[in-house]
Amino acid sequence: MTEPEPSDADMQRRAEEDLVDRVLASFDGTPDERLRTVLRSLTSHLHSFVREVRLTQREWDAAIAFLTEAGHITDERRQEFILLSDVLGASMQTIAMNNEARGEATEATVFGPFFVEGAPRVELGGDITGGARGKPCWVEGTVADTAGNPLPGARIEVWEADEDGLYDVQYDDSRTAARAHLFADEQGWYGFWGLTPTPYPIPHDGPVGRLLEATGRSPMRASHLHFMVSSAGKRTLVTHIFVEGDPLLASDAVFGVKESLVKRFAEQPADAPVPGGREIGDRGWTRARFDIVLPPEE
Amino acid sequence: MTEPEPSDADMQRRAEEDLVDRVLASFDGTPDERLRTVLRSLTSHLHSFVREVRLTQREWDAAIAFLTEAGHITDERRQEFILLSDVLGASMQTIAMNNEARGEATEATVFGPFFVEGAPRVELGGDITGGARGKPCWVEGTVADTAGNPLPGARIEVWEADEDGLYDVQYDDSRTAARAHLFADEQGWYGFWGLTPTPYPIPHDGPVGRLLEATGRSPMRASHLHFMVSSAGKRTLVTHIFVEGDPLLASDAVFGVKESLVKRFAEQPADAPVPGGREIGDRGWTRARFDIVLPPEE
Ligand SMILES: [Fe+2]
Ligand SMILES: [Fe+2]
Repeated sequence: MTEPEPSDADMQRRAEEDLVDRVLASFDGTPDERLRTVLRSLTSHLHSFVREVRLTQREWDAAIAFLTEAGHITDERRQEFILLSDVLGASMQTIAMNNEARGEATEATVFGPFFVEGAPRVELGGDITGGARGKPCWVEGTVADTAGNPLPGARIEVWEADEDGLYDVQYDDSRTAARAHLFADEQGWYGFWGLTPTPYPIPHDGPVGRLLEATGRSPMRASHLHFMVSSAGKRTLVTHIFVEGDPLLASDAVFGVKESLVKRFAEQPADAPVPGGREIGDRGWTRARFDIVLPPEE
Repeated sequence: MTEPEPSDADMQRRAEEDLVDRVLASFDGTPDERLRTVLRSLTSHLHSFVREVRLTQREWDAAIAFLTEAGHITDERRQEFILLSDVLGASMQTIAMNNEARGEATEATVFGPFFVEGAPRVELGGDITGGARGKPCWVEGTVADTAGNPLPGARIEVWEADEDGLYDVQYDDSRTAARAHLFADEQGWYGFWGLTPTPYPIPHDGPVGRLLEATGRSPMRASHLHFMVSSAGKRTLVTHIFVEGDPLLASDAVFGVKESLVKRFAEQPADAPVPGGREIGDRGWTRARFDIVLPPEE
């Protein structure tokens, strides 16, 4: 008996699979084992994608043009590849994986591009706004370990946009505003005056913005306040708190929202006692509570 | 009975899967059905990759830096994203899929970046070298359909590097050399004088070059001669022929080699009759045969 002639479809499938095998094998000589593993996985999934959708030559051209444009719009102040990773949820997935669930530990979310080293220190109960405009917000809570013990002296970095949806670094005047660090007290307590968070769009005048538009997606981020919290021997937490009732919670452009991070920013009645006796204008103020739990360092 | 508390590992897996689901769902409103399909597949495979290797934050940073550098080295003359696609075999896979196996049809391979529109026409039997240096090579063959009928007047574009491994467009003097087009005769026959192909490296002074180095891979392409062949009602063929015995056949940097495209470039004895009675120098000459079969247009 002789083998039956393979059909065109068989030949085609074999040629495609053989190509994948050859590309995978090309990494066999990679001295760094981790690099070899990553590249083999990347190659394998890339080919699976290309084959699954039967990518056309025109689509391949469009992909090359997209990446080229993303490269050309990227500079010291704009990072289109991070935006791309963000809107595809890859940034958030990386964070999820590198902050694995640990009992009651507070969940992490995206870091975002607006953190700045060396933000000013404020005392407990102080004001981080530095003149940024918005509705005042009193934020307080505790920092504890997973056994419930307070973490005195935990370092808390906070930063947020102003009521126009802009971070200080997005202005041309090198101001420092709406960012600071402070340290928890002996009971792990912290508190500060900030701004009630407002929504803002990610930069959307580039190829990633066009992608969002073509898919009917919004570039808006749900309103949030950034935290980075660290304490000796504990896993550093990078996260946000979000605003309960914000209609953008379900469609955050970068998939940063986690239910456990949505907090009530309660509107305060005119006669409510103001922490620290601060003078509040006509607009009123809100308050929110955020208790933070840090797991041990891995 | 109450449900058992989910373990941290369960929570983690659910959080990761839930994120993938949310990203996929974000494309539900994409009006263009094909775009929706492509983005869902891309997202799904991207997350599978990230989760499979448990990508670290440092590796994610490195990926962003790699893409940024690729974007910045890319300009009118240099296309690092195409090189990246090439060395990962994605270019070749796209070509394989868009030129599906059809009986005896000649196989396709990568287009490469060095084709130029409007290359000069040479007569059958003419010389395409335009002064480019290298060992002369007589190339001939026929162009036919899959039933074996000749395709008179088929258009044949050919282009190749010189003996220094450079295409004309890689010189600064806007020369035109080692590229031409010609038309098959009534019997589908064609023949021309070119150069015996020599190997050359893909550009490797950028991030893709560093990637090849880190994986112990060579940037060299196996020696080849480019063809693009078209005839009314037939699928246009973009391909190369490669040189039998070339030690680089097994490690072509872009995975362009297919067995059926490897041809004998036979060294000719001093007393061999020279096609067209051409004057040959001391270095001798080679000859190769390439019979081309074009399937019907899809
Ligand atoms: Fe932000
Ligand atoms: Fe080439």
